[in-house]
Amino acid sequence: MTDSFPDLAQSSPPIITLLSDFGLEDVYVSVMKGVITCIYPAARLIDLTHQIPPQNIEIGSFQLGNAYPHFPPGTIHVAVVDPGVGSPRRAVAIQTPSGILIGPDNGLFSHVLMQESAIAAVELTHRQYWYTEEPSHTFHGRDIFAPVAAHIASGISFPELGPPLELNSLNRLVSCTTWHPNHSGGTGIIQAIDHFGNLITNIPASQTQHRSWSLHIGQSFIPSTTSYATSEVDPKVKALAGSHGWLEIALPNGNAQHFLSSNVGDLVTLKLHH
Amino acid sequence: MTDSFPDLAQSSPPIITLLSDFGLEDVYVSVMKGVITCIYPAARLIDLTHQIPPQNIEIGSFQLGNAYPHFPPGTIHVAVVDPGVGSPRRAVAIQTPSGILIGPDNGLFSHVLMQESAIAAVELTHRQYWYTEEPSHTFHGRDIFAPVAAHIASGISFPELGPPLELNSLNRLVSCTTWHPNHSGGTGIIQAIDHFGNLITNIPASQTQHRSWSLHIGQSFIPSTTSYATSEVDPKVKALAGSHGWLEIALPNGNAQHFLSSNVGDLVTLKLHH
Amino acid sequence: MTDSFPDLAQSSPPIITLLSDFGLEDVYVSVMKGVITCIYPAARLIDLTHQIPPQNIEIGSFQLGNAYPHFPPGTIHVAVVDPGVGSPRRAVAIQTPSGILIGPDNGLFSHVLMQESAIAAVELTHRQYWYTEEPSHTFHGRDIFAPVAAHIASGISFPELGPPLELNSLNRLVSCTTWHPNHSGGTGIIQAIDHFGNLITNIPASQTQHRSWSLHIGQSFIPSTTSYATSEVDPKVKALAGSHGWLEIALPNGNAQHFLSSNVGDLVTLKLHH
Repeated sequence: MTDSFPDLAQSSPPIITLLSDFGLEDVYVSVMKGVITCIYPAARLIDLTHQIPPQNIEIGSFQLGNAYPHFPPGTIHVAVVDPGVGSPRRAVAIQTPSGILIGPDNGLFSHVLMQESAIAAVELTHRQYWYTEEPSHTFHGRDIFAPVAAHIASGISFPELGPPLELNSLNRLVSCTTWHPNHSGGTGIIQAIDHFGNLITNIPASQTQHRSWSLHIGQSFIPSTTSYATSEVDPKVKALAGSHGWLEIALPNGNAQHFLSSNVGDLVTLKLHH
Repeated sequence: MTDSFPDLAQSSPPIITLLSDFGLEDVYVSVMKGVITCIYPAARLIDLTHQIPPQNIEIGSFQLGNAYPHFPPGTIHVAVVDPGVGSPRRAVAIQTPSGILIGPDNGLFSHVLMQESAIAAVELTHRQYWYTEEPSHTFHGRDIFAPVAAHIASGISFPELGPPLELNSLNRLVSCTTWHPNHSGGTGIIQAIDHFGNLITNIPASQTQHRSWSLHIGQSFIPSTTSYATSEVDPKVKALAGSHGWLEIALPNGNAQHFLSSNVGDLVTLKLHH
Repeated sequence: MTDSFPDLAQSSPPIITLLSDFGLEDVYVSVMKGVITCIYPAARLIDLTHQIPPQNIEIGSFQLGNAYPHFPPGTIHVAVVDPGVGSPRRAVAIQTPSGILIGPDNGLFSHVLMQESAIAAVELTHRQYWYTEEPSHTFHGRDIFAPVAAHIASGISFPELGPPLELNSLNRLVSCTTWHPNHSGGTGIIQAIDHFGNLITNIPASQTQHRSWSLHIGQSFIPSTTSYATSEVDPKVKALAGSHGWLEIALPNGNAQHFLSSNVGDLVTLKLHH
């Protein structure tokens, strides 16, 4: 890379992504975007999703972790699933090798931090970078997280935002550790259910490479396959490696969640065959 | 501000926001965006919400009023909740100190105009700035409002768009005036219900400053609190000052609308205590 | 157009639109956007809709066809309604006079290709323009279509993407041809139902110009009108020319789908009067 060929990814303003449980019926999300553009007009904004089930930190963390590895270096991710807003829970910014995470310190960044270690973290206490020095008790997305993201995009550095945090003090979800591999496979859980009713386990797809395998949930045996497409003579539930990197259970042309009456947290067993 | 430090907010193309009752299932919203980018390719587009209940001008006005104060000066807001499309209702553009409003003259701008007075208004009659000189009878968002917004963003001035309007001729909603304060509090209504089932009154939060207070709806007494977070031993409905500036009623970890069987328009009484 | 007045539409980066059946609950759509911005940071992204009913190619094609004519020349449309993902169905890019279409070759581009003929098409087989040389079996939106769109936006030409395709080999939907005009009108079907419950036929509005007319569905006679607005003394279902160019059936202040118990595929007869 020479001076005459500038790195486009670097010379463009950073992307700011937004994830929340605010839904799209109200204007909360757009208010965060308005606040960002007031501070940093060149912001490039991309919504991850705003339909995290209300106050469901586990699903918020899962979805953020799925999206995170596919964004350019330097992307700033603002995530707001914040049942503790107004309580003393910490507001944080976290630097990783690939980007920056901003939101409440309640476990929401667990799935990202399984992929990449934090290299710096700061508690957001310096009010001159907030939207108002007297923030509301109910909407820190607008009052703290969005404006801090905009200030970081415009060049403000971590030490200006507040005191540094011990990296091992950041909150992690317990549910990120409930996959127990053993010599014949292992036991995990349904960690999320997507829009199509596909059941997404917390079993890494890498566990099955070069082996034949099946999943077991309740009394059901789920054979493995390699794609959603299937012949009409065999319209049964299938287990496969999802594009997000986890094993999942799908019902071609149907809804596996309804078919199996399964829910998040249900136990799933992986069996590796000979 | 000197010549060598240009105002970023001014030198960036203006933001165009979009609000409607079109939903996100169909491509109506994207068609408006396509029309805007045909006329003004540099447009920066932000959705407020497109899930206003169909033809509900009151909620449309409420949501636009909530978002409006958080956008940069010069932002252009296109709002389309338009049950009278195809009838002789007027199409208007309104200038305020902070921005520009474009849409039908049916009361949709009432909540904004409670916050800031109009300083100019024009009826949109000059067809050279429309998408087509023979607009459809059903989709003025595409045919009039979106293209006029794009032309304003590109520098067209109000007098070119049509004849000026008397500012006091602009339509206002009656429901913006149903808050009646008195010496011990006052009587208002539920003016909107958000995604979480929180009941948003039309009682300004400023009415309660430095006093203890409660709300009363039907037979229910709702004590006030300062945040959504609450102890598990006390999972009851609470009244609080919402981040939008109105008093609201919330059920922590639940849905206040369902719990109280309340609807938009229900009477709410504010009691100020000694 | 002289050198000193560059064409803004040409000098801006091309718009990339996205249409899918992924919904907005999961981060699939945002992952496609992340992949695009990794490859082509200047991309300008507009969502058409992501709420196509799962795997419903007919509605996907209809919605894409409605949006298509309203975007600037050179727009790149990525469409992913792809029940055959993981099967041998072809991945294609198609050039038309107005833009570029990218997605599975399963009929999804039928409504666009009724409006404009393809002038070039290519099968997407050259893996150096994919997100990974070993794409998943479940998410070609991320692995093939989004990155190819970004590469085209950045200047990669069709011959670099794979072998050319015979234009008449592209898949078309049969349902695009079920409108049968005759001397007194003709017979078509309900091809889609929008967010408001309006029934959209596959009968071109141009069939009725300068004639009085009515529609007939089941045992119901539907008189024609010219706008949604109607007097309160006459709150009945009406037929009208929709803004998308097709005849449609609407119930003012109500839901025509529920009122008539109609569904996609139901027969509709057009009667032209004397």
